Amino acid sequence: MPSFPTLDEIQEAAKRIRPHIHRTAVLTCTAINKMVGGEIYFKCENFQKAGAFKIRGATNAVFSLSENKVARGVATHSSGNHAAALALAAKSHGVKAYVVMPENAPQVKKDAVAGYGAEIFFCTPTLRAREETLAKVVDETGAAAIHPYNDFLIIAGQATAALELLEDISDLDIIMTPIGGGGLTSGTALSVRFISPRTKVIAAEPQGADDAYRSFRSGRLIPSENPRTIADGLLTSLGDKTFPIVKNFVDDIVTVSEEGIIKAMRCIWERMKIVIEPSAAVPLGALLTNRLDISGKHVGIILSGGNVDLDRLPWLTEKA
Amino acid sequence: MPSFPTLDEIQEAAKRIRPHIHRTAVLTCTAINKMVGGEIYFKCENFQKAGAFKIRGATNAVFSLSENKVARGVATHSSGNHAAALALAAKSHGVKAYVVMPENAPQVKKDAVAGYGAEIFFCTPTLRAREETLAKVVDETGAAAIHPYNDFLIIAGQATAALELLEDISDLDIIMTPIGGGGLTSGTALSVRFISPRTKVIAAEPQGADDAYRSFRSGRLIPSENPRTIADGLLTSLGDKTFPIVKNFVDDIVTVSEEGIIKAMRCIWERMKIVIEPSAAVPLGALLTNRLDISGKHVGIILSGGNVDLDRLPWLTEKA
Repeated sequence: MPSFPTLDEIQEAAKRIRPHIHRTAVLTCTAINKMVGGEIYFKCENFQKAGAFKIRGATNAVFSLSENKVARGVATHSSGNHAAALALAAKSHGVKAYVVMPENAPQVKKDAVAGYGAEIFFCTPTLRAREETLAKVVDETGAAAIHPYNDFLIIAGQATAALELLEDISDLDIIMTPIGGGGLTSGTALSVRFISPRTKVIAAEPQGADDAYRSFRSGRLIPSENPRTIADGLLTSLGDKTFPIVKNFVDDIVTVSEEGIIKAMRCIWERMKIVIEPSAAVPLGALLTNRLDISGKHVGIILSGGNVDLDRLPWLTEKA
Repeated sequence: MPSFPTLDEIQEAAKRIRPHIHRTAVLTCTAINKMVGGEIYFKCENFQKAGAFKIRGATNAVFSLSENKVARGVATHSSGNHAAALALAAKSHGVKAYVVMPENAPQVKKDAVAGYGAEIFFCTPTLRAREETLAKVVDETGAAAIHPYNDFLIIAGQATAALELLEDISDLDIIMTPIGGGGLTSGTALSVRFISPRTKVIAAEPQGADDAYRSFRSGRLIPSENPRTIADGLLTSLGDKTFPIVKNFVDDIVTVSEEGIIKAMRCIWERMKIVIEPSAAVPLGALLTNRLDISGKHVGIILSGGNVDLDRLPWLTEKA
């Protein structure tokens, strides 16, 4: 059996982060239910602080560190939601955040991270440059590095979204998440196993970044090479802490075309009148493109985030 | 004193339409509150059935008609939210709807009206052609014509949005609405006078379609000539039933530039992660462009609707 956070640790995380996060709404949509023939309960983490579920894990990690370890701040490298979440979590805790970002990151993301008071270090846009720059920042500042997903405190934090969803809706046949690095998916799988073992956990992944699908099928960790998808939150590969949890506790992983992701994203904007980012649309994309049949079933879907560049909407810029 | 619906009639309307509409959420946003220095409570009629508050008035009108009058259906001319609302209200009541639409109406609006089962009659896009075609349709079918706003049953229906808002948030200093034909504004003003007389009612109008502003200031009804604004729900002019109510019970009307409307619309999408149409953004536009100071105040804003063409977002197509 793999190592993983216990139910106690997840419930501790929920208690720890409660004052610092939103308990997000669960929404339904009759028109979408008709399209898929089942009943979907959308857990709206797009309404979460800093616009994504990432604040759950980041807050749990920052507030779990000993005073000694956290005193000199926290650090990470990220161009996405984890960077903003860590910056906000550090601000809530009154410590400094150092964020390494690729110099070509979108201005809106640089602004968000800076807006929460983090200090930004720019580097060339390669994984190696990001890791080297982070190592240097940690060395110089004494900050504690916090990984975006391959970390049990992060996983326990992300697990609290499913905990809330199961408290609100108790009779779910399936819970679906998008999958990238596996933090949200492994946390969700743990909460479901502990609280509602009959509920199946199914992750949905872009075809163009299908390392989790291939790793799950083959039973060994196969990182992505040159992943390409508009779901910019799902470009990362599973880690050595998330993969074993996914392998043991997730029931299935399905893949979704770019066209399916765009169709689902637009469907949620038009029918539900809410803004979600492409990554959040992947599970519904699996349903709308018939990768999974949920006829007659009750299905929870975690809408992972709502941070999207309104100047570059995929149905206007991408060939679907 | 003008004629207007009584509190009893508004409460009757609320009871009558309750099974057929959503009680919409009231949302707040810390980031926007910081920008304006007050506390805003957004009544989310963008989440309403058929995507706008219009279903309230249309349902009240259709369900108030005698069996004899409604038996041969209902009819209107509209290219917008009232057309879809009337089509859905007729469907809920099990009667036919006939909708006269200009032939150049956007496909998405034709689809919505047809999707609710209404029969569509196309005409050339002039007010005269629309009125003549409607008269002919009414003559041939025996359907009851239902005006989009200049009708006491419609006004009483639209008044129920403010009724719900005041039930949820009792200590509002101001309630703001966008103003076009005046159905929502006059209904809101009546509910506020009856339920919370100390609350001020302030309407916000696009500068490019400012007939209500000019009528309010001059004390006489001055219809718009060639109104131009991206707030496509607010191109209509006040009517002889809405104007007297607005004149007597609204505290002020402020006007907003196109730039201010676009800025507010984008702000709500980005910060609140919800989809609203340009018309719904006009009140916040007044605050963001300093047409009204709400420092330290509690302000309700009715977000009137969320029906927007996702292929033509104003910050991508208009020069702001």
